[in-house]
Amino acid sequence: MSLDTLQERLAEIQSLNNIGAVLGWDQQTQMPEAAAGARAEHLATLGKVLHEKSTTDELGKLIEDAEKEIDGMDSDSFEVALVNMARYNFDQATKVPTEFVAEFQRATALAHNRWAQARAENDFSQFRDDLAKIFEMTQQQAEYLGYDDHPYDALLDQYERGMKSADVTRIFNDLRDQLVPIVAGIADNKDKASDALLRLDYPIELQRQFGNEVATKIGFDFDRGRQDLAVHPFCTNFSRNDVRITTRYEIDWFSGGLFSTIHEAGHGMYEQGSAEALDRTPLAGGTSLGVHESQSRLWENVVGRSRNFWTFFYPELQKAFPEQLSNASLDDFYRAINASSPSFIRVEADEVTYCLHIMIRYDLERAVYDGDVKIDDIPAAWNAKYEEYLGITPPNDTLGCLQDVHWSAGIMGYFPTYALGNLLSLQFYEKAIEAHPEIPEQFAEGKFDTLLTWLQDNIYQHGSKYPPKNLIKQVTGEEIRVEPFINYIKNKYGEIYGI
Amino acid sequence: MSLDTLQERLAEIQSLNNIGAVLGWDQQTQMPEAAAGARAEHLATLGKVLHEKSTTDELGKLIEDAEKEIDGMDSDSFEVALVNMARYNFDQATKVPTEFVAEFQRATALAHNRWAQARAENDFSQFRDDLAKIFEMTQQQAEYLGYDDHPYDALLDQYERGMKSADVTRIFNDLRDQLVPIVAGIADNKDKASDALLRLDYPIELQRQFGNEVATKIGFDFDRGRQDLAVHPFCTNFSRNDVRITTRYEIDWFSGGLFSTIHEAGHGMYEQGSAEALDRTPLAGGTSLGVHESQSRLWENVVGRSRNFWTFFYPELQKAFPEQLSNASLDDFYRAINASSPSFIRVEADEVTYCLHIMIRYDLERAVYDGDVKIDDIPAAWNAKYEEYLGITPPNDTLGCLQDVHWSAGIMGYFPTYALGNLLSLQFYEKAIEAHPEIPEQFAEGKFDTLLTWLQDNIYQHGSKYPPKNLIKQVTGEEIRVEPFINYIKNKYGEIYGI
Repeated sequence: MSLDTLQERLAEIQSLNNIGAVLGWDQQTQMPEAAAGARAEHLATLGKVLHEKSTTDELGKLIEDAEKEIDGMDSDSFEVALVNMARYNFDQATKVPTEFVAEFQRATALAHNRWAQARAENDFSQFRDDLAKIFEMTQQQAEYLGYDDHPYDALLDQYERGMKSADVTRIFNDLRDQLVPIVAGIADNKDKASDALLRLDYPIELQRQFGNEVATKIGFDFDRGRQDLAVHPFCTNFSRNDVRITTRYEIDWFSGGLFSTIHEAGHGMYEQGSAEALDRTPLAGGTSLGVHESQSRLWENVVGRSRNFWTFFYPELQKAFPEQLSNASLDDFYRAINASSPSFIRVEADEVTYCLHIMIRYDLERAVYDGDVKIDDIPAAWNAKYEEYLGITPPNDTLGCLQDVHWSAGIMGYFPTYALGNLLSLQFYEKAIEAHPEIPEQFAEGKFDTLLTWLQDNIYQHGSKYPPKNLIKQVTGEEIRVEPFINYIKNKYGEIYGI
Repeated sequence: MSLDTLQERLAEIQSLNNIGAVLGWDQQTQMPEAAAGARAEHLATLGKVLHEKSTTDELGKLIEDAEKEIDGMDSDSFEVALVNMARYNFDQATKVPTEFVAEFQRATALAHNRWAQARAENDFSQFRDDLAKIFEMTQQQAEYLGYDDHPYDALLDQYERGMKSADVTRIFNDLRDQLVPIVAGIADNKDKASDALLRLDYPIELQRQFGNEVATKIGFDFDRGRQDLAVHPFCTNFSRNDVRITTRYEIDWFSGGLFSTIHEAGHGMYEQGSAEALDRTPLAGGTSLGVHESQSRLWENVVGRSRNFWTFFYPELQKAFPEQLSNASLDDFYRAINASSPSFIRVEADEVTYCLHIMIRYDLERAVYDGDVKIDDIPAAWNAKYEEYLGITPPNDTLGCLQDVHWSAGIMGYFPTYALGNLLSLQFYEKAIEAHPEIPEQFAEGKFDTLLTWLQDNIYQHGSKYPPKNLIKQVTGEEIRVEPFINYIKNKYGEIYGI
């Protein structure tokens, strides 16, 4: 009874969230620039309504009553998952005072503008005070949200429910210790692979057509989604039947458009696979950012940069771009798309070095909260970490600590999920192959449905019904760990670079 | 003080309305079909929130207080207009019981589906009961809304504030008496113009490019708007800086794409011209459907189908379509785009016959409310009217009384605004030419800004600050009347058809 009414209220909140996603998608793909001010007002109004609806006393009471109703029910049931999620969201929304939320929004809006200018002008000092304020306010936010061990846990929990900073530190230390020597080994053999082939001119309309073919073939359903252009590619959705991926093509960088298409299609298939019964509930869609990223990276890298994948697609690609590729062998192409080298910009990093970029950000965030690094020392600390982990020193802060949007947006505790997703992608893939050893060879025949069906059955259909920790345990029998990823990197890059 | 708070509340309501428009635009231009169910839920949730926010006791109290505050203020002031509009909208929203609104939504949702099927299968009987229910419910709606003379006034008032059915009847009788003989005269001379030239193959991408050039040239600002494809072309906006027009191209019907582009650009320029100070208030954008339609029709027909307009554009068009048009003279083309003949389908009607289609619908709506025509007799009455006004009898109901979506959507009292817009387009145009007699010749030089600026200054900038009756009086010194339109038709078509 309360459960029914609760479900109605949650469905409305879900709809309002979906509406916000429509506004955001339109803003980034269709809207004329001149409308930015008006759209900010739309989003502010919707945010206010959403906050009101998410924090009513009635909702709190409905959740309390529903908690009594589910007492004794199967802990794996939809009802229990729904009420638990409703409780989690309600607590998250009500713990932080409304005035703080408003002040935080104002602070990050200003910070974002000053960060953009600081980055453009390579001048950290312009962003320094905003960044200090954001670290202070997120510390305060953590106090409101509550934590047992470390304030970082409260921040991280927003994106990776149940994950603790102590675990991240342990995992990352392990990962770093194993990755740094590999990166150094590749650097010593860097002539063995080059991405020059991908830097020829590839006409954009042909890139688009090929990308759409690939996305369709691996299983992104264009009848329940679409693809558009965006400056910063992303995936969003307004229901499992309306999943929008975006990409950006550069004429002289083939990898950019294609692999971001596959990456976003990976996110998209996860959303499209969420069970119909979960739609219009807070259990719809991916369970955490880490698990989401595991899917985009699985499809982008483990599948999309594999030799088997290109055994199937490379002849097609050569047909589409004969001028550029008819003299390049499959092996040439395979080495080009997997060329690895340390670089300054995270979003352009290859799959070997990527996690090290993440760890640098994580280390610094923790160090600032712990008082070990002062705001003014961030640029130097950043550069020292790049030297330590990747063997390179950013020539300026634009290519250094000013490169990412996250801090200016007040998104602290978010970065680790990118690296955790990379680790998970291999843990899941190993399990899929255990169940269906034929999967890798199937790629060479353009067959991706065995893998997709396994992911669908084991991960996608569950949406957010299981918290990430539970889902990971249930699918892999393990916690997050580094070995599958490290073994994959060692095997693949050992072969490519002869190390 | 109350006025400030009132303005904040109204701004939120305006934002929610804009958000609904984004959802609608996306639905009709971008959304995958599979998402229809989810989008209906988004719209229902938003509608509920909008209704809540529009009918709170707090809002009613704020309006009452603000009414005291504006007492004695200049009746032409922004504040007075704002409070009057707030009062009007609040009364409209609170007079109709929430349960009735919900029941009406359910009824029209069902009716729409059955109408679509009835139309597809040419079977009025499938839609009959729904139509009867909609006539009953709209009569009830009129009772809730209130009226002095006739329930139709209450319905009409929703779209053309202050207009009375008695006035519409008087205007339409006059218009019909003068139009019917003109239509008959053209029919007797129908060989003097033909649209065959427009039915050659015109590649769609070239149509699109030419249409965008024309829209840009007449003054639609693509930096504050965009154009997309839609099955049923429309114009919508989410602020004066974000105006979205849509169109549809057919390869073998050149007029369809181009003139719908100019039509929607006319609506769009009206919205783009609304003063910045009115944005985020209920005074933003066009003041009524009739005045809106006067702008789309002014640009589409009076400007876009004039000889001067094509003196400028026809050489461009011939360059774009040499194969189709190099042997056709400007005069051939001018006659083709102005060929007139009675036809069954309203949306395909030319500017001479269009208003007669409207009058038929108006006559029937009134006759049903007055008990003079029974639901079952609508098809026969419809056909008789087509014979009487246009000299043709629809061969079936699909081409007859089932053709329009409006009745199934519960939109009664809406049709007259289309015809009123046609009359107004000439009243406004006459006044513009009185002020700037050089306007028509300027078109021949591709110069449209004198007209646009005049419209901007006299109509567009005011948004909905003045109720339509006041605006019309202020701009023309008159009420709506038929002579300017009839004179225009007589002159133009007298010359084309030699009558």
